[in-house]
Amino acid sequence: MTRPTATAVPLHPVLAARWSTRAYDPEAELSDAALLALLEAARWAPSRSNSQPARFLVGRRGDATFTALLDALKPRNRQWAQHAAALLAGLAPLRDDGGEPATHASYDLGQAVAHLSVQATALGLSVRQMSGFSPDVLRQAFAVPDDHEAYVVVAVGRHGDPVTLAEEVRAKEAAPRARRLLAETVFASAWGSPLPAARPRQRDASPPSG
Amino acid sequence: MTRPTATAVPLHPVLAARWSTRAYDPEAELSDAALLALLEAARWAPSRSNSQPARFLVGRRGDATFTALLDALKPRNRQWAQHAAALLAGLAPLRDDGGEPATHASYDLGQAVAHLSVQATALGLSVRQMSGFSPDVLRQAFAVPDDHEAYVVVAVGRHGDPVTLAEEVRAKEAAPRARRLLAETVFASAWGSPLPAARPRQRDASPPSG
Repeated sequence: MTRPTATAVPLHPVLAARWSTRAYDPEAELSDAALLALLEAARWAPSRSNSQPARFLVGRRGDATFTALLDALKPRNRQWAQHAAALLAGLAPLRDDGGEPATHASYDLGQAVAHLSVQATALGLSVRQMSGFSPDVLRQAFAVPDDHEAYVVVAVGRHGDPVTLAEEVRAKEAAPRARRLLAETVFASAWGSPLPAARPRQRDASPPSG
Repeated sequence: MTRPTATAVPLHPVLAARWSTRAYDPEAELSDAALLALLEAARWAPSRSNSQPARFLVGRRGDATFTALLDALKPRNRQWAQHAAALLAGLAPLRDDGGEPATHASYDLGQAVAHLSVQATALGLSVRQMSGFSPDVLRQAFAVPDDHEAYVVVAVGRHGDPVTLAEEVRAKEAAPRARRLLAETVFASAWGSPLPAARPRQRDASPPSG
């Protein structure tokens, strides 16, 4: 199932085709090659001074790591995420090598997961990121050290039939995708003053086609 | 100039072709359509509960916003970044709508800038992200409110001739690109225990070809 992103100008297909799916094919598995491609994409993402703060815990459906990651999710996520082919927790350090607060570690983790999800889209896979999990449960299950923090659990798999979803989740899955207008987000000259180039296309860019 | 990324398995070209360049063509400009494509890519990036925390200040070489962003950079960055076609500051809120610390705002800003840089690569443009700037100078120049923070200034443009760079910067520009091994970053079962699938290919993945 594709849901074209309604943009003022065309985006590259790997960006335009991406959306955060909840329906996964419970039979589909993730090959070693596909998993490595996702992880290599994250590995080669840029980071502040090439500090590479991103760390991952990776489980595939049926293994103990997957089960432990699933257990850390909030029940509403567990319900659909159990069918994903893989779950990956994304973690980053709280302090840098000098002991100062790592101001850009979660920023760089976000970049790494974004690269991972672009690669997943290129492979025809779907991704949904979740912050709805218990960092404490996850910390305990995997003996995560105190100086690292989990920010995200990522579900990856082949898109499945939404009919398998609970009714409330299925409605969310079909809801139109929406974003704020560029003119409310992109400024020039001063904060709050829209970039002129972002103005004329506002109407084209919204509402999304769903 | 291309610098293929040495990976254990092939990455999609828009990821494999990306690297953080310092040499920009001082004649090349960024069209409205290209700039909009970059901003639309950022706009459609995923974010926690679709909160869309990313904000941008955008200047093109020759305009007042560009000059003010350039002035906020550390001198070592100013030297090469002056030739970029555009500079974009990326900002995010410090607190969420309920007044709680925005734990995922910089994570989501990182995702938005990653999507922007993937789109830039797809358009044949180069990107380098900088944390070497003064948030205070930037805050003052653009009246950024206290509840938002600038995390990055992004240079975008057409890749230029490295001969224009100062000798020390030129050496950095030509240095081999390197990343930590996957087995040191990707765990299963417990923190620090390498994911088995990430092990056998370690040798293939490193060292990078430069």
